[in-house]
Amino acid sequence: MSDIERDVHAVARRAKDAAVDLAPLSRAVKDAALLAMAEALVKQVDEIVAANAEDITRARESGAAEAMIDRLALTPRRIEAIADAVRAIAELPDPVGEVVRGRTLPNGLELRQIRVPLGVIGIIYEGRPNVTVDAAALCLKSGNAALLRGSSSAYASNTAIVRVLREALEGTGVPVDAVQLVPGTGRDSAQALMRARGLVDVLIPRGGGSLIQTVVRESTVPVIETGEGNCHVYVDEAADLGKAVAIAVNSKTHRCSTCNTAETLLVHSAIADRFLPAVLAELKDLGVTVHGDERTRSYDADVVPATEDDWATEYLSLDLAVKVVDSLDEAVDHIRRYSTAHTEAIVTDSQSAARRFVERVDSTAVMVNASTRFTDGGEFGFGAEIGISTQKLHARGPMGLPEMTSTKYVITGDGHVR
Amino acid sequence: MSDIERDVHAVARRAKDAAVDLAPLSRAVKDAALLAMAEALVKQVDEIVAANAEDITRARESGAAEAMIDRLALTPRRIEAIADAVRAIAELPDPVGEVVRGRTLPNGLELRQIRVPLGVIGIIYEGRPNVTVDAAALCLKSGNAALLRGSSSAYASNTAIVRVLREALEGTGVPVDAVQLVPGTGRDSAQALMRARGLVDVLIPRGGGSLIQTVVRESTVPVIETGEGNCHVYVDEAADLGKAVAIAVNSKTHRCSTCNTAETLLVHSAIADRFLPAVLAELKDLGVTVHGDERTRSYDADVVPATEDDWATEYLSLDLAVKVVDSLDEAVDHIRRYSTAHTEAIVTDSQSAARRFVERVDSTAVMVNASTRFTDGGEFGFGAEIGISTQKLHARGPMGLPEMTSTKYVITGDGHVR
Repeated sequence: MSDIERDVHAVARRAKDAAVDLAPLSRAVKDAALLAMAEALVKQVDEIVAANAEDITRARESGAAEAMIDRLALTPRRIEAIADAVRAIAELPDPVGEVVRGRTLPNGLELRQIRVPLGVIGIIYEGRPNVTVDAAALCLKSGNAALLRGSSSAYASNTAIVRVLREALEGTGVPVDAVQLVPGTGRDSAQALMRARGLVDVLIPRGGGSLIQTVVRESTVPVIETGEGNCHVYVDEAADLGKAVAIAVNSKTHRCSTCNTAETLLVHSAIADRFLPAVLAELKDLGVTVHGDERTRSYDADVVPATEDDWATEYLSLDLAVKVVDSLDEAVDHIRRYSTAHTEAIVTDSQSAARRFVERVDSTAVMVNASTRFTDGGEFGFGAEIGISTQKLHARGPMGLPEMTSTKYVITGDGHVR
Repeated sequence: MSDIERDVHAVARRAKDAAVDLAPLSRAVKDAALLAMAEALVKQVDEIVAANAEDITRARESGAAEAMIDRLALTPRRIEAIADAVRAIAELPDPVGEVVRGRTLPNGLELRQIRVPLGVIGIIYEGRPNVTVDAAALCLKSGNAALLRGSSSAYASNTAIVRVLREALEGTGVPVDAVQLVPGTGRDSAQALMRARGLVDVLIPRGGGSLIQTVVRESTVPVIETGEGNCHVYVDEAADLGKAVAIAVNSKTHRCSTCNTAETLLVHSAIADRFLPAVLAELKDLGVTVHGDERTRSYDADVVPATEDDWATEYLSLDLAVKVVDSLDEAVDHIRRYSTAHTEAIVTDSQSAARRFVERVDSTAVMVNASTRFTDGGEFGFGAEIGISTQKLHARGPMGLPEMTSTKYVITGDGHVR
């Protein structure tokens, strides 16, 4: 075992011990600790901004793009907003202790299935240091110990933030080791975390596709896969034209760097003559580059020929693949082949078309006459989300606090034997 | 890719296609198919018994123990019982389509979280050919395609059974490929199944600890870990003596080869003088070999000295490890160290002791004044179970039909955009 592996596992073991004391804490204790964390962030803003300045200097020296530096930068105003987000998490209901199922069995045994924390949650994430606070707060509220592994570019900021958060926990009744930064900035420290099976209960990667795929491939700790979205909008022959244009345009352009942005538009051939000229014109006005099949290109000479790659690509940019299909089933087949099963939308006025699409598209979220951009914990009313799961086990879709828990059965008898 | 891998993946691909058609099937269609399966098993009993005779001959030739042959053997009466179990599954409620959560969002979007099948479920199991039918029926009822990988010792029986089940599905509206046997009997065919990521949605191993650990270690397909049980009974200082003896004895001896059998008994030192002589005598009468720590051995010269291994062993036999502890917290620490987090029981009349034990023991099921033997889908009233999950993600505890599903969000709007 290497030094870094030993260090990471020592931190994980402390998290596991902390989790034992965290699990039975009352909501009142956890909420008071969250408010103390929020207050400490605001009070110690100078310390955090100074640490952040080190990261920014290093980023500039290594020639990072301005957009990346902006994502990294912490200002007093941004820290105030981060603290407000922690206060908002304190106001959410505590998922722990909820009786999910309960009954008295015929023999008199009282059966309860009770929501409990998962235990130790490792978060591996990129870029923004606000995730450090957000993840720590969501873990604490749901009774889990957080092991935070941010990117090396934000290491000074994350170190300062975690120090402030841990100091804030002192005397609150929440164990200080409920929030820990994983030591090290190299690949080896992330790998040690991925191999801490038995110490870490679940890993949640938050970031781009390659980060997520690396964690899924290399981790022996169970992983909740998040976020990759090759999302589709299908405009059915029975679509309302105005709604179809609005939904297609919004799904692509509202905020094109997000995982719930549409990357491919499928158009039924029976409506293509009326729909495509309108939508292509509007997309062009908004600066979207359309990659189309032959039939799409016949409507606009500016459309770039689509290759096989285009159907499979999550652009996360103002690019959109467009294809004309001859039936709803052809659209469904295309989606089943290329989608990452995040979000797909149908625009139609036909009940039977909507029903068939919903039944046969096996994605995390299926929108009927609504933009793909609505797949979001905030929009769903969850109050906060740790990510959007695109896997089928455990949690599927935006993950709020209940998705950060497990359950256990408690069975109470009076000397019952079989 | 080897030939066997190609064959297994071809079968998995057919299962994936079948899953698309299975998902939207109504309960009526699925139940009718289940009843047709039950009827076919009874009608074609001769064919099945003849195939089973081949397996038994082979087992005898290879010198298998009589107990193993008995587990393998199918008689007309056993097949009738297997068919009855299928009919019972048909009577259970259909989990698919249940609206788990639903609300109208402030913007008028209608949000529903709906239970859907997982898709393709692979079952890797040992011994008894009744599991072939049971797993196929549970998968079908929950809308999943089943990929069955039984042991090589039952290959002829399983082949005959699956042929009968598939013939029964013809004309029912359920795709025949909803039930498939994984080709091959070697290790390579199981390995090919474990590597069919993207084709198989989840693998459920059913069998002994070494099978389960192999699947957990080698599979790139998500696995639901089942069944290993190093279960504990803790007799608190405030226990009722009669209940404590009954629960300890029942937890060990009621059916000692099951995963919910107690393997270690922890006794508070304050009650040891009164409790241990009584329980040790009764255990001895029932043929139990006790492996005890020094203090336990002071009560009975027949107690074998316990080694470190005894605390960690799932005996699955008439052996029991016994240890005297000086506090509830010492019992909890012992359990946290050695338990497989399946089932632990406390016997106590103290509310505060019960509460502390329940809060701090992080196991799938925690019994208060009841035998560990109650952790069971049938006892819990689930009607059927595919196994007992001892992991924290997705499903924990006995897994009934709802645990064999995922969910998806369906969001209905009227041209909604952000």
